[in-house]
Amino acid sequence: MKAFASDNYSGVHPEIMEALHQANHEHMGSYGADEITARVVKKFKSLFGDDTEVFFVYNGTGANVLGLTASTQSFNAIICSELAHINVDESTAPEKFTGCKLIGLPTTNGKIYADQVENRIQRLGDQHHPQARVISISQSTEYSTVYTAEEVKSLSEIAKKYNFYLHMDGARISNAAVSLGQDFRTFTKDASVDVLSFGGTKNGMMFGEAVLFFNPSLAKQFAYIRKQGMQLHSKMRFITAQFDALLSNDLWKRSASHANRMAKKLEHALRQIPQIKITQAVDGNGVFAVIPKEITEALQQEFFFYVWNDQTNECRLMCSFDTTEKEVEQFAEKAKALCSAL
Amino acid sequence: MKAFASDNYSGVHPEIMEALHQANHEHMGSYGADEITARVVKKFKSLFGDDTEVFFVYNGTGANVLGLTASTQSFNAIICSELAHINVDESTAPEKFTGCKLIGLPTTNGKIYADQVENRIQRLGDQHHPQARVISISQSTEYSTVYTAEEVKSLSEIAKKYNFYLHMDGARISNAAVSLGQDFRTFTKDASVDVLSFGGTKNGMMFGEAVLFFNPSLAKQFAYIRKQGMQLHSKMRFITAQFDALLSNDLWKRSASHANRMAKKLEHALRQIPQIKITQAVDGNGVFAVIPKEITEALQQEFFFYVWNDQTNECRLMCSFDTTEKEVEQFAEKAKALCSAL
Amino acid sequence: MKAFASDNYSGVHPEIMEALHQANHEHMGSYGADEITARVVKKFKSLFGDDTEVFFVYNGTGANVLGLTASTQSFNAIICSELAHINVDESTAPEKFTGCKLIGLPTTNGKIYADQVENRIQRLGDQHHPQARVISISQSTEYSTVYTAEEVKSLSEIAKKYNFYLHMDGARISNAAVSLGQDFRTFTKDASVDVLSFGGTKNGMMFGEAVLFFNPSLAKQFAYIRKQGMQLHSKMRFITAQFDALLSNDLWKRSASHANRMAKKLEHALRQIPQIKITQAVDGNGVFAVIPKEITEALQQEFFFYVWNDQTNECRLMCSFDTTEKEVEQFAEKAKALCSAL
Amino acid sequence: MKAFASDNYSGVHPEIMEALHQANHEHMGSYGADEITARVVKKFKSLFGDDTEVFFVYNGTGANVLGLTASTQSFNAIICSELAHINVDESTAPEKFTGCKLIGLPTTNGKIYADQVENRIQRLGDQHHPQARVISISQSTEYSTVYTAEEVKSLSEIAKKYNFYLHMDGARISNAAVSLGQDFRTFTKDASVDVLSFGGTKNGMMFGEAVLFFNPSLAKQFAYIRKQGMQLHSKMRFITAQFDALLSNDLWKRSASHANRMAKKLEHALRQIPQIKITQAVDGNGVFAVIPKEITEALQQEFFFYVWNDQTNECRLMCSFDTTEKEVEQFAEKAKALCSAL
Repeated sequence: MKAFASDNYSGVHPEIMEALHQANHEHMGSYGADEITARVVKKFKSLFGDDTEVFFVYNGTGANVLGLTASTQSFNAIICSELAHINVDESTAPEKFTGCKLIGLPTTNGKIYADQVENRIQRLGDQHHPQARVISISQSTEYSTVYTAEEVKSLSEIAKKYNFYLHMDGARISNAAVSLGQDFRTFTKDASVDVLSFGGTKNGMMFGEAVLFFNPSLAKQFAYIRKQGMQLHSKMRFITAQFDALLSNDLWKRSASHANRMAKKLEHALRQIPQIKITQAVDGNGVFAVIPKEITEALQQEFFFYVWNDQTNECRLMCSFDTTEKEVEQFAEKAKALCSAL
Repeated sequence: MKAFASDNYSGVHPEIMEALHQANHEHMGSYGADEITARVVKKFKSLFGDDTEVFFVYNGTGANVLGLTASTQSFNAIICSELAHINVDESTAPEKFTGCKLIGLPTTNGKIYADQVENRIQRLGDQHHPQARVISISQSTEYSTVYTAEEVKSLSEIAKKYNFYLHMDGARISNAAVSLGQDFRTFTKDASVDVLSFGGTKNGMMFGEAVLFFNPSLAKQFAYIRKQGMQLHSKMRFITAQFDALLSNDLWKRSASHANRMAKKLEHALRQIPQIKITQAVDGNGVFAVIPKEITEALQQEFFFYVWNDQTNECRLMCSFDTTEKEVEQFAEKAKALCSAL
Repeated sequence: MKAFASDNYSGVHPEIMEALHQANHEHMGSYGADEITARVVKKFKSLFGDDTEVFFVYNGTGANVLGLTASTQSFNAIICSELAHINVDESTAPEKFTGCKLIGLPTTNGKIYADQVENRIQRLGDQHHPQARVISISQSTEYSTVYTAEEVKSLSEIAKKYNFYLHMDGARISNAAVSLGQDFRTFTKDASVDVLSFGGTKNGMMFGEAVLFFNPSLAKQFAYIRKQGMQLHSKMRFITAQFDALLSNDLWKRSASHANRMAKKLEHALRQIPQIKITQAVDGNGVFAVIPKEITEALQQEFFFYVWNDQTNECRLMCSFDTTEKEVEQFAEKAKALCSAL
Repeated sequence: MKAFASDNYSGVHPEIMEALHQANHEHMGSYGADEITARVVKKFKSLFGDDTEVFFVYNGTGANVLGLTASTQSFNAIICSELAHINVDESTAPEKFTGCKLIGLPTTNGKIYADQVENRIQRLGDQHHPQARVISISQSTEYSTVYTAEEVKSLSEIAKKYNFYLHMDGARISNAAVSLGQDFRTFTKDASVDVLSFGGTKNGMMFGEAVLFFNPSLAKQFAYIRKQGMQLHSKMRFITAQFDALLSNDLWKRSASHANRMAKKLEHALRQIPQIKITQAVDGNGVFAVIPKEITEALQQEFFFYVWNDQTNECRLMCSFDTTEKEVEQFAEKAKALCSAL
């Protein structure tokens, strides 16, 4: 089976699988006290600067929720897009674990903007009202669009102005970096992001994400927060060995570039079909398109994908490291044939 | 490096690694909607009965805390041993996530007993007092001792008498089963355990544990609890493929038998050394022994292990699926030599 | 000082003060085990039906948050107006204590409507998404408007259709009852409300609110929830004696009628001033009006009130049991004079 | 009815009732923005020093739990006596609201001691283990015994040594002050207590407690914590007017002295009865005594009291500001008569 359902329908990249094999020899210290973890921490520091604090967790929800926990007190509010993964796809983990209110701002392209955020800030210092403290953005967004470094900076300026923190959900950060043609640091640390969920699983890993603190004061208690958050892995080397591979020989870039290119190719092919309407800029590895309702089911049987919006029948088509040109072509041809028959 | 430090210092059993490889082909439904997961759920049901509800999570703390969450309301109390992993080694995850109080009963061998539990139950129905609702035991215990099925039953009878639930932390359940020479079911479901954390990682898996509900009413909302608890894996097949291997060709039994046998061998060897005192029955895969303080560090350099009790210098020596006879012998010889030189 | 700032700027009604005196003799059982509490529970049951479960707490936030706690599990969502007190004026107590997400629907008059709620319900049964379970409305609303019994019923029909609960924040329920000219029961229990915060403090009490469960299954564990929620008063008779007075000789009705009448009088007087624009229907005891910014401060010095909306300079003018006709006249005259001078 | 059941069976002291009357005129700012509250804050500061931060809440559980919340992060542990009110009489409010584990130390007299605390501190810096951060003591204790200033100091020295905080539950602090013959400050702030729950209700108030921070850094966010904790009263003047009376003309001292003296008188009378055994030093306003089981019920019918320990039939007899000499005599005579008839 192959699908455009999600980048987590795909398996594990062979180079990562090989790294897991290599890591599987004899005994190593647990909970991160091993040489592989030490090496990977260094790699992250070389990418982001020596004052970056690096932690590893199981999954994206864990990375986001615990990064936000480290950045808030329970009477705070977190400003994000109404479509943010933390707002609609992590159950109430953010509320339950942080105690905070999430404030979802309207968005048409998955992004939120500095003036929009600033207009929404209210009643700071009023004990009765949830106190906004964090701005959280997804890079790339849930609509597969990508913030420019300038857009990130304009948000971090608002954050600084109000003594907030800027959190980035980077479940698909490699796709964003490739899309921008920039190194990670330019649009994260150098744009004054405070804490970053650095995604692995959606870019070919088996499991595992990293939480990077560019604001080291937020990291001080994170070891306790992670353990309490049930996100500390015992055989840690098997998370970090994967990141070791991902950060070696540009694997992250090769995989993300491929996925993004497949999305572009898919976009291009679908644009040839008049009955299909592309709804979002294809910055990353996903294509959003309104597909005629009548052909959706037949098309899903060829390559499964999700209907993103029941009302409009907007569909989400995700590409991953293992999507092939042939699959894209096959899908587009099928779509074309089904549309022609309407 | 090889060590007696912990069964999570060891790596991944080759058969499990092979299963991960086999699972890594093409796309599969995420979050458990895949054929491997379906197959493994069936395997668990064939072991424990069709009315067993089966869920998979990342780690032991997640399995315990979420199983307890499903069994309690936040004003409840959980009765366990003072040495229970949930009481001393899971940060305050149980308190934070369940809201409950943990009541740790004194123990000399890691077990708690029915009359001891019953004597501790107090003020039921009194709104001011934490309301005991769950008895939690570890099988095998943190002292590597094993409850007999009768001991479990006597605790579940107390649980039934007071309308409590019985929770079992089975991080090392395979070692217990091998020690008892019984199938899993005899001392869990058939002994009226309500919810079980079925351990994988400490028996040769890379990551992943199962939560089994023998009381299906507790499982009704567990999918939501797991997601909220940040313990739902996207590429689920890579947890369940490991369990598939573990439950195939008696791998769980071969691995646990070996680890237990190595512990017995180690116990036997250490008993020959008059300066060393075995402190606990060696039911499972761990040996607890008071080792002369003067030789501890030298011995740790040969094979690392943890001092369990700083006052008495009681040490914990854990064996795992990959501990070799030669390592045991080498360790005992070293200990003997160091003791002789005292 | 007298003000139109809030109905909690006022003090305690003399009949309630007298009841506190009468209650202050000798010893009584604490935590509600006293004759006054028993009598008041009966009074509530005679108003709402014998199958009503009655609890007393300290304040409105406590009543709302604990009533919602009893109606939810932590992975649920609560649908309310974006202006709801629970959404904007109770810090993050609802999120922290229930774990749930609050979904604030847009409103122009403080009310939410059945079709609006139904359109917002999504992804029920999807483990990734907060699961809506409660609809919460304020009666009268934060805009001092009042739901008709039919409007409440249409919301409770949605609640029943989806197996949700309907919660009513009745901090100003007496003002609503007077406005509707109906007894409490008609637009609460008989309109299938499940749980009601019955307000006392804003209608002339010193402290104390009641939580009434018309759905007794939700009340089963409420004694524990209240104690855990730090809302169980020891000298309970001093809350219930106040309710005793409030429910005697129609004090609740006399006080609320007066406050509502004063609001109507104020509305009428302000409508004579062309520079002032009444923005909401004056159903209850509050008047919302856009007042020229230039005169606001001078007018506040006469009788303090709050600016509700900084952008539009919409102001909130609350009347209470002790607002006098003369004060209303004096305020309107002052406003008129200040406006004339513009 | 009069009883020795609890100091919360008693009503409100007439001087406090009078203060409530005096406070009940016209409008005042709510949530503490009133002149009475300002005055009482000053009174507390004159008692404890200008750098004391003063907040008012509804009840003792609220004061304790929120004071502890301000002193901890959720992965911390709180060390207290196993009999501490926070450990056995506040449901699981401390766990649910702080997330922390409570570690109850064994005690025979209600106190915990510095060396006992220090011996229990373990695994600081170990991410797996709840991190002790607060020592909490009750003054007077649940056994009505009183810590000397030196005993408090020895505990605060331990607190300082380990960078912990010292919390004092002063629900009955006036009884302790009278017993010690010291001003409040000597055994609290001057003994390096960090945060104090200053009790009012048990010493003749209707409702209300104060939270005093002697460590101002802990107070910074307390306004938000209080609101989120549902403990912020709107008509605040009616809490603070009571404290105004309590702190005027030594009312606190007169009431507590009387209660303590009645306890002493009761102790003395009971000591004359050979069948009754006083079990604790009578430092404060409570007498603990083993009373023959056969006479308990008959004696309870004369003056109700609680059996504290079902096994030993140790009973708790509490005196309050309104206990009379005659009641004490009557009770002791009844006890004597019943015992003689055994």
